[in-house]
Amino acid sequence: MKVDRPQFSSFEPPLRTLMGPGPSDVPPRVLQAMARPTIGHLDPEFVRMMEELKQLLRYVFQTTNEITFPVSGPGSVGMEACFVNLVEPGDKVIVCRNGAFGGRMVENVVRTRGVPVVVEDDWGAPVSIGKVEVALAANPDARILAFVQAETSTGALSDPDPLVALAHEHGCLTIVDTVTALGGVPVKVDAWQIDAVYAGSQKCLSCPPGLAPVSFNERAMEKATTRKSPCQSWFMDLNLLLGYWSSSTRTYHHTAPVNALYGLHEALLMLQEEGLEAAWARHLRNHRALVAGFEAIGLTMFVAEPHRLPQLNMVVVPEGVDEAAVRGRLLAEFDLEVGAGLGALAGKVWRVGLMGYAARPENVVKCLRAFSEVLGDAGVDVAGHEAEKAAQAVLQAG
Amino acid sequence: MKVDRPQFSSFEPPLRTLMGPGPSDVPPRVLQAMARPTIGHLDPEFVRMMEELKQLLRYVFQTTNEITFPVSGPGSVGMEACFVNLVEPGDKVIVCRNGAFGGRMVENVVRTRGVPVVVEDDWGAPVSIGKVEVALAANPDARILAFVQAETSTGALSDPDPLVALAHEHGCLTIVDTVTALGGVPVKVDAWQIDAVYAGSQKCLSCPPGLAPVSFNERAMEKATTRKSPCQSWFMDLNLLLGYWSSSTRTYHHTAPVNALYGLHEALLMLQEEGLEAAWARHLRNHRALVAGFEAIGLTMFVAEPHRLPQLNMVVVPEGVDEAAVRGRLLAEFDLEVGAGLGALAGKVWRVGLMGYAARPENVVKCLRAFSEVLGDAGVDVAGHEAEKAAQAVLQAG
Repeated sequence: MKVDRPQFSSFEPPLRTLMGPGPSDVPPRVLQAMARPTIGHLDPEFVRMMEELKQLLRYVFQTTNEITFPVSGPGSVGMEACFVNLVEPGDKVIVCRNGAFGGRMVENVVRTRGVPVVVEDDWGAPVSIGKVEVALAANPDARILAFVQAETSTGALSDPDPLVALAHEHGCLTIVDTVTALGGVPVKVDAWQIDAVYAGSQKCLSCPPGLAPVSFNERAMEKATTRKSPCQSWFMDLNLLLGYWSSSTRTYHHTAPVNALYGLHEALLMLQEEGLEAAWARHLRNHRALVAGFEAIGLTMFVAEPHRLPQLNMVVVPEGVDEAAVRGRLLAEFDLEVGAGLGALAGKVWRVGLMGYAARPENVVKCLRAFSEVLGDAGVDVAGHEAEKAAQAVLQAG
Repeated sequence: MKVDRPQFSSFEPPLRTLMGPGPSDVPPRVLQAMARPTIGHLDPEFVRMMEELKQLLRYVFQTTNEITFPVSGPGSVGMEACFVNLVEPGDKVIVCRNGAFGGRMVENVVRTRGVPVVVEDDWGAPVSIGKVEVALAANPDARILAFVQAETSTGALSDPDPLVALAHEHGCLTIVDTVTALGGVPVKVDAWQIDAVYAGSQKCLSCPPGLAPVSFNERAMEKATTRKSPCQSWFMDLNLLLGYWSSSTRTYHHTAPVNALYGLHEALLMLQEEGLEAAWARHLRNHRALVAGFEAIGLTMFVAEPHRLPQLNMVVVPEGVDEAAVRGRLLAEFDLEVGAGLGALAGKVWRVGLMGYAARPENVVKCLRAFSEVLGDAGVDVAGHEAEKAAQAVLQAG
C-alpha cells in the first residue's frame, strides 16, 4: 500500500482587493514581517517581542489588563477561549443574538454545559438595552452577559458601555466580541469595564487570519482561576496559558505560531504609528464616501444610519439582480472581493468591507466603479459616474 | 482613562540555526510563500490550493483518507481535536505514557470526561507492546488506544504497526501522535490502519508553527459523526469542520489562516520534490553522523540505539556541567538553538533536533564544533576535533 507522490507546483495567489467581511487587505510591511527567519518560541529575543506584543494589544484594547495576549488560533478560538474559561456547567449566560455571531455564542454556552438565555434582536438592529435589562431582571441567577459589539453578519454596531454597566449592576461578568470592531471603531476595555474580550487579526488590524487577541480583567481572571471544575479545553485553559504568556514564568505550553506573531507585531506597530483615533477617523471618512457613492447610484444600505459599522457596509441587492453573479464578475474582472450575505441575509445583501489597510480612498473609488459597471450591465440604472463624484466630494470635504 | 501609545519598532529576529525540539529551520522558499498576498478564505483560487494541500498531506501521511486536512492551530489543537471528537463522556481510553506528550493525552481524556487507563513506560523507552496487550485484555470495555509514535520529550520511537493491530483485535480505535514523526521517519497511516492521527507543521515539515495536519479514516469518522453527545468544542467539531474542508460544500466555519497555509503548501511541495523515502534517509544519515560525532567526544546518548529518533537526539549532560549555561553559550555565541530537557529530564539532557530542513551536513558539523568548544571550555575532555572527523566519515560513507 503506497500513496503516490502528487505533482503540484508553488501556489501564486492572484492579487485581489479584499473588501469583504475579512480577511482584509494586508499591507506589504506585514507580509514581509511574516517572512523573517523563524526563531524558537522560547528564544530570549522572541520573548522580548512577546512583551511588546502584549503592550501593543493593551493599547488597541485601551486597557491596562495584565492578561492581554493573542490566542494561537482564529477569532473563533478567541470566542471559545472566553466561554470555556468563564462558563462552568450550569452557569446561566444571557446571550444577545442579533446576527450569526451571537448565535455562535449561544452554541458555545451549550457546549460548555452552561444555560443560555437568549435575547433576540432583528438582524441589522443593535442589541436592545431595554431587552437586556428585562432579561437581567428576570434572571437574577445569571452569571454572564455576552454580546457582539460589531456584528460581522449584519453590519450593525452595538454600544458596549451601557450594556456592560447594566450587567455589572446585576452582578454579571461580561464577554464582548470585538472581532470586527477592534481597530475600526472605539473599543475601550477599561473605560467600559469589559471583563473578557476577544478579537481577530484579519479584520481592522489588517493582519492575515489565524490569531485572536484577548484580554481579561481581574474579575474575569478570578473566575477563571478559582472555578470548581477544570476548564474543558486543555489548549484554551487560561491557567496553563498564563504560564507561557506571563513575563515571569515562560513555561512551555504549546508552540506559538512564531511568524504569524511577527505579522501581528508589525500590524500593531502600523496602528501605533497612525494612532488609534486617526484610524477610527479614517474608517469613518472612507465609509461616508462609500455610502454617498452607493446612494448616488440608487443603492440602499441595509442598516439604519446611526447603527452602521464604518468598516462593514451592508448593501441591499436590488430587486431582480443575481447577487452571486455580481460577486463573481467583481472577482473575475476587477479582482475585487466583497462578501455574500450570511444565514438569513444570504442572497439579500452584499457585505462591503473597509477594514484596516483596505479603508483607503482608492479602494472606495475602485469599488464604486466596479459596482457601477457590473450593475449597469445587469440592467440597474446607475446614473453614470455619479457614484464616484459623490464619494470624491465626501473625501475632499475631509 | 486612556492607554498611551507605545513606541516600539519593527522586530528583526536574529538568524538562528534551530536544532531544538521544534520549531526547526524554515527554508527561504517557505518563508517567501508566507509573504504572498493574502486572498479570501473562500476565494476559488484558495479553494483550489486547499484541495492540493489535502492531497499533499495524504501523501506525507501515506493515506487515501478523504478527511485529511490541517487544523487551524498548533499541534496541541490537533491532539485536542482528536480527543474531543472521538472520546465521549464515560469512554474508557487506554493511554500509553512514556513521556510528556503521553501525559498530555491523559489530560485530554480527563477533560473530555473519558476514563483514562494509563500504561506507563520509562522516559526514553518505547511503548511496551506487552503492557498494552495486558491493558487491552484487562479492559474489554476500552474504546480507544492512544499513544505517541515519536516522543518529543524523550527522543524515543515506538512502533505503531503492532500497537494498532492489537487495538483493533480488541475492538479499539486508535489515536496516534505523529507530531515529531511526520516527515522524519515512516508514518504509514493506511498500511498500519491508524484511525486518527495528528501532527504539527513545525517539526520535520519545516514550516513555521501554527498548523496541525490531521487524518481520520472511515471508522473514526463513523464515531465522530454518530456520537450521542455533541463534541464539546465548537471550533474543533469535525461535523462542522467538514463543511468547510469538504470539496463539495465549503460552508463558512472559521476563517482559515491563509498565509500560514501558503507556507504549509510550499513546505509539502518541497517534500513532494525530494520524495518521502529520500527525506527519511536524509534524516537517518545526518543522525548517524551527529551521533558518531557526539560519541567521539565522549558524550552519551540517552535513548538505547534501536529506539532512537533520527530527528531528535537526546544527549546526556556530563556530570558537573551546567546544562543551561551550555545552551546559553550555544545561543549567544553560535546562534545555535538546542532544547532543554522537559519534565523529569530537565537539567539531565539536551534535545538536539535534526528536523526537516535542519537535517543537513553543515548543521551536523556546526553543532559538533559548537559543542566541542563550549564543553571544552567547561572542562570536559572533548578530544580535539575528533567529533567533526567522526561525523564526516559517516557522511562520506553515505
